Amino acid sequence: MTSLSAAQKSLHSHREQFPALANKAYFNYGGQGPMAQGVMDAISETQAHIQQLGPFGNEVGRWIGLSVQATKAAIASELNVAPTTITLTENVTVGCNIAMWGIEWQAGDHILLSDCEHQGIVAIAQEIGRRFGVEVSTCPLMDTLNAGDPVEVIAQHLRPNTRLVALSHILWNTGQVLPLDKIAEVCRNNQSLLVVDAAQSVGAMPLNLTELGVDFYAFTGHKWLCGPAGVGGLYVRPEAQASLKPTFVGWRSVVLDNRGKPVDWNKDGQRYEVGTSDYPLYIGLKEAISLHQQWGTAEERYQQICRNSEYLWRQLAALPDVKCLRSSPPESGLVSFQLANQQPQTTLELVRFLESERLFIRQIRDPDCVRACVHYFTLESEIDQLVEAVQRFCRS
Amino acid sequence: MTSLSAAQKSLHSHREQFPALANKAYFNYGGQGPMAQGVMDAISETQAHIQQLGPFGNEVGRWIGLSVQATKAAIASELNVAPTTITLTENVTVGCNIAMWGIEWQAGDHILLSDCEHQGIVAIAQEIGRRFGVEVSTCPLMDTLNAGDPVEVIAQHLRPNTRLVALSHILWNTGQVLPLDKIAEVCRNNQSLLVVDAAQSVGAMPLNLTELGVDFYAFTGHKWLCGPAGVGGLYVRPEAQASLKPTFVGWRSVVLDNRGKPVDWNKDGQRYEVGTSDYPLYIGLKEAISLHQQWGTAEERYQQICRNSEYLWRQLAALPDVKCLRSSPPESGLVSFQLANQQPQTTLELVRFLESERLFIRQIRDPDCVRACVHYFTLESEIDQLVEAVQRFCRS
Repeated sequence: MTSLSAAQKSLHSHREQFPALANKAYFNYGGQGPMAQGVMDAISETQAHIQQLGPFGNEVGRWIGLSVQATKAAIASELNVAPTTITLTENVTVGCNIAMWGIEWQAGDHILLSDCEHQGIVAIAQEIGRRFGVEVSTCPLMDTLNAGDPVEVIAQHLRPNTRLVALSHILWNTGQVLPLDKIAEVCRNNQSLLVVDAAQSVGAMPLNLTELGVDFYAFTGHKWLCGPAGVGGLYVRPEAQASLKPTFVGWRSVVLDNRGKPVDWNKDGQRYEVGTSDYPLYIGLKEAISLHQQWGTAEERYQQICRNSEYLWRQLAALPDVKCLRSSPPESGLVSFQLANQQPQTTLELVRFLESERLFIRQIRDPDCVRACVHYFTLESEIDQLVEAVQRFCRS
Repeated sequence: MTSLSAAQKSLHSHREQFPALANKAYFNYGGQGPMAQGVMDAISETQAHIQQLGPFGNEVGRWIGLSVQATKAAIASELNVAPTTITLTENVTVGCNIAMWGIEWQAGDHILLSDCEHQGIVAIAQEIGRRFGVEVSTCPLMDTLNAGDPVEVIAQHLRPNTRLVALSHILWNTGQVLPLDKIAEVCRNNQSLLVVDAAQSVGAMPLNLTELGVDFYAFTGHKWLCGPAGVGGLYVRPEAQASLKPTFVGWRSVVLDNRGKPVDWNKDGQRYEVGTSDYPLYIGLKEAISLHQQWGTAEERYQQICRNSEYLWRQLAALPDVKCLRSSPPESGLVSFQLANQQPQTTLELVRFLESERLFIRQIRDPDCVRACVHYFTLESEIDQLVEAVQRFCRS
């Protein structure tokens, strides 16, 4: 019988809150995080509470208003910003849409993307390009994973007409963490706005957006924060708000006159919100954030994520049939790797084989690889299982 | 002791499924419908099922895909359309945004609204007007509640440059049902597209959108369908799809090549969907629709709604201090009324007084009135309570 240290016991009891972790070894935090039972209970209880109070009336309306504020405050505490800078959205991609469609595009403007952006962001840029006669180009950041300077690459690809640069904080395919502070400076010097896809960074690393200087930072609650699907948000830097017009709007966006006609936008982040959401999900996200903060600070959680990803990376790198994309330990919880002599179907077959063994990772198409994510509460024993199964797959 | 008929017993047992109805007399179906316990349980169980399967992986992804299709099929059965014409959205206003921003606006185009549209739709039109140099005007339908022909009014206000007409099927303030088939014909003859805010009609009346000929029909599941907040949809007439470009887009919108790059829009309604939603809510909506269909057909439910609203309207109309907006029995479940000699604060005071008596209605600002909604499962005894309390308020 193994005897556990106090820290291990505490980690085990923390993990016991997540039903999803009981029947599998989970490495898809970058796809969707598991929900704690307490988070799911908070959602159900809020649903019941709203039914008991309303569901529609003056008292329940006030209660929901306070809940929305509390959720924004919880998010703001993770991002180190004022709650008034937060817009709640259905997911990270909606946040990117708000930022990208809200610029008053002129024909001949330019959008710069990296070559590692998620297909959703690429699709937004392509359609804006088509709709308004805006040029869209990409700069090669994939090749800077192990050598070279992404800031320099971006600087070289900025043009005088670059209105917007769209990048991820942590690249979803390779796991590279971009130096956003320096990138923000380069963009500012070129009078380009900067929108960041923060799908892989919020909940995964310490953040101070007030200092970071990015204009728009879109995130979701259902990945690294382990909240419910269906709630994300957008941070808009106060100085950039005037540059960002509301596009999709509704009753949440506007201030009304006494006849109920819209006469102005709300002053804070609510101006970019549209209509009725499932408010119990907001309470779920607030609870999910609280649970992480009870475990440790954002810095402590990030350090543990890096210890876990280094542990995984070192074992994978030692396998003769595996090639990790990174040549040194990762700076994030994303560990992407390929198999020696892989064929076009190999990565999908590996993912399916592993899922049949209750090991959950995902395929990435560009570069053709698989991605395993570790969270601060990932166990070394889970990592050992994964490495052993990958080894078995390679030998088969 | 009162003895109940079989129909009354069946209605009482149907109502017992809704916890919200147990502690109040509810007349805010046009704001938000109550959820049945079975609907809430289906949401919680789906949440747990997704955790058990994933939450992110190949198997759970397939299961979610089937669930999305099942929800679209349930909605399509209420609208009498093909499931492929349905886009799932967070709420009705998002559906209106998709329809209104998806037109390739040219400066000098014209949008025609009625004077009874919800502030969210007015805000969308105003911002499109500002952004693209599009003219926005309104036509006076409020005055056609008891006399006059809304079709004629609309026809008179169409211009050669009217690209889009935006109307509600049932006007949210007065409860008037617009003759959409004739309006659609007038619009078609003017080569104007027609977008309909169906917030008050879906779940409240029998619909056959295939025959109706409207181009875009935006609705929500959380009002008359009694589904969860956070799920609605948009019907796009197949012939109108080419006129409607996707605006807010994401991974759900696109077809990918083998490198994961977006190369086309999805063929069906999914092209207007963006990113991750809370899929358990979809299952909740499917269950909510099923529950109504078990009670009766859309026609049967609508007939019962009209019997209930006539019962309410007749009693209110008989009160000396009450003025119903309608001069004849309503054609919908919305019954709006004013008090004799009312002051600017009167309607709000009435709503607050009634809520303190556990009677839930809402204030409307234009025209200054209150609105009580009855569903097919509203009890005559609830209506009696409401009328008695209104009478008491008037005498106080």
